[in-house]
Amino acid sequence: MIIDPAAQVRSDLDRLLPCFDGVYLEPFAAGEASLLAESMRYSLVAGGKRVRPVLCMLAAECVGGSAELALPCAVALEYIHTYSLIHDDLPAMDDDDLRRGQPTNHRVFGEGQAILAGDGLLTEAFRVLATASPLSAECRVELVAVLGEAAGWRGMVGGQSLDLEGEKLTAAGGSYGLDYLQLIHRLKTGALLRASLEMGAVAAGADPAQRRALRDAGAAMGLAFQIQDDLLDETSTDEQMGKRVNKDQGRGKITYPMLLGLDGARRALAEATAQAVTLLETLPHPGPLIAWAHFMAERTS
Amino acid sequence: MIIDPAAQVRSDLDRLLPCFDGVYLEPFAAGEASLLAESMRYSLVAGGKRVRPVLCMLAAECVGGSAELALPCAVALEYIHTYSLIHDDLPAMDDDDLRRGQPTNHRVFGEGQAILAGDGLLTEAFRVLATASPLSAECRVELVAVLGEAAGWRGMVGGQSLDLEGEKLTAAGGSYGLDYLQLIHRLKTGALLRASLEMGAVAAGADPAQRRALRDAGAAMGLAFQIQDDLLDETSTDEQMGKRVNKDQGRGKITYPMLLGLDGARRALAEATAQAVTLLETLPHPGPLIAWAHFMAERTS
Repeated sequence: MIIDPAAQVRSDLDRLLPCFDGVYLEPFAAGEASLLAESMRYSLVAGGKRVRPVLCMLAAECVGGSAELALPCAVALEYIHTYSLIHDDLPAMDDDDLRRGQPTNHRVFGEGQAILAGDGLLTEAFRVLATASPLSAECRVELVAVLGEAAGWRGMVGGQSLDLEGEKLTAAGGSYGLDYLQLIHRLKTGALLRASLEMGAVAAGADPAQRRALRDAGAAMGLAFQIQDDLLDETSTDEQMGKRVNKDQGRGKITYPMLLGLDGARRALAEATAQAVTLLETLPHPGPLIAWAHFMAERTS
Repeated sequence: MIIDPAAQVRSDLDRLLPCFDGVYLEPFAAGEASLLAESMRYSLVAGGKRVRPVLCMLAAECVGGSAELALPCAVALEYIHTYSLIHDDLPAMDDDDLRRGQPTNHRVFGEGQAILAGDGLLTEAFRVLATASPLSAECRVELVAVLGEAAGWRGMVGGQSLDLEGEKLTAAGGSYGLDYLQLIHRLKTGALLRASLEMGAVAAGADPAQRRALRDAGAAMGLAFQIQDDLLDETSTDEQMGKRVNKDQGRGKITYPMLLGLDGARRALAEATAQAVTLLETLPHPGPLIAWAHFMAERTS
């Protein structure tokens, strides 16, 4: 069994990040909007791999910064990612009942509260960045701009919109090719993964060349992540993944294995990972992030 | 007929704010996520009174700032307000077919795209503030924090959650009183109206006392606005309002006229307006905003 090289980082992170074990969320419980708070917390503490926080904090370390300084970015990224899962799971989107091994937010709290939980987490992400006090105002403003671009209509939200359109197309008997699939993923999942590394760079005060290297490595890792996700959807069980698998084809979703074959998809995954590693090797302290990139490409869940 | 004293300001604003007539939205059309962009623009250009932008820009002028400097705040506020309408109109929330005299977003683009249009506008609001270049980084960060607090789970989103809960309660034969009603409105509509004035103050570099006066006046105007909305719902026609009226009671919503009677609600409206005016009179140039507060309290649509 391969040990996740970020397990220690994530455990440090969860200790440093009380928001992920409920303590930071304390005001939610005492606040005026308690059902909403409960619903936000439900999806936040449901776990997951914390991919974006890990990427962000390891990226900060790549350029000699401290992971702790990147903590508000890690929190904001996980808020954004969690909100996107809540909204994607809604009946009007992917209509999923299971997420991270538990009933999806709207199955527990109802559709209305689930939409609001997503809206609340999305808004809170930007408030957290704006009030990240050890960072300078210039740095915080830059972080809001990077996250706003990556998570918004020209990034993640735009990708989800294209994905919905693509499903409508295939449901009507049409199809689309590799270019459109790559555009969907570059926006839907790639933009936020790229931003995870870039925000780590910004928080750590990276120089422009380092920031560009981390941003580009993030794009390659985002592609690798998505190909691996498609491969796992085809070859894993529900139990391993904690969600319904093998659902892409049933729903008419087009995947990398469908377009490239299993072996072709595995080759593309290896190439994207190698490209990320080459970029990371130009940085002062890339070891842990490179180890993690390899681990992610070999994960089985 | 009373002439809206902010009509000139709003017309200047629409001229200065090309985003509201489609030009600023040009990249949406050329962008990769075109259906999403169309759906975001659809609700943005549908009109409305532009209450929050007007409040924000007049507030900046109250303390000697220029309305133009407050423009990015006005844009961000209208994005947030528009997203909240799109999400509130969804079947899982208020389930409305008509808004600003036109079919609601989800009736035109479908529920999935409507949820995403809201997410896109919400995210874009913060990106616009973060990149509002004539303002200092300190100022922009403060604006993101104020808007994040007002629009989020302890503000607008929290209020909408309480409102949904309240409807569930009344649907089950229960009821609630004035305290809960005021809490809903203080959060659901009041927080963003208060933030509109506060953001104008921040953009204009107001001193702490001026900022507090504008913030408190915003709270009073928010209350007045909501009471007037309830009164209009009871006494107007669909045609005057551009949306379904007299729907609150049918849906079991509790309103100020229900709790205070028509005359009591009118008295409360006059009191809240007077309180706002008293606060505004402490500022250097309050004339236009005071005139507008009176106009809003007397509006018939």
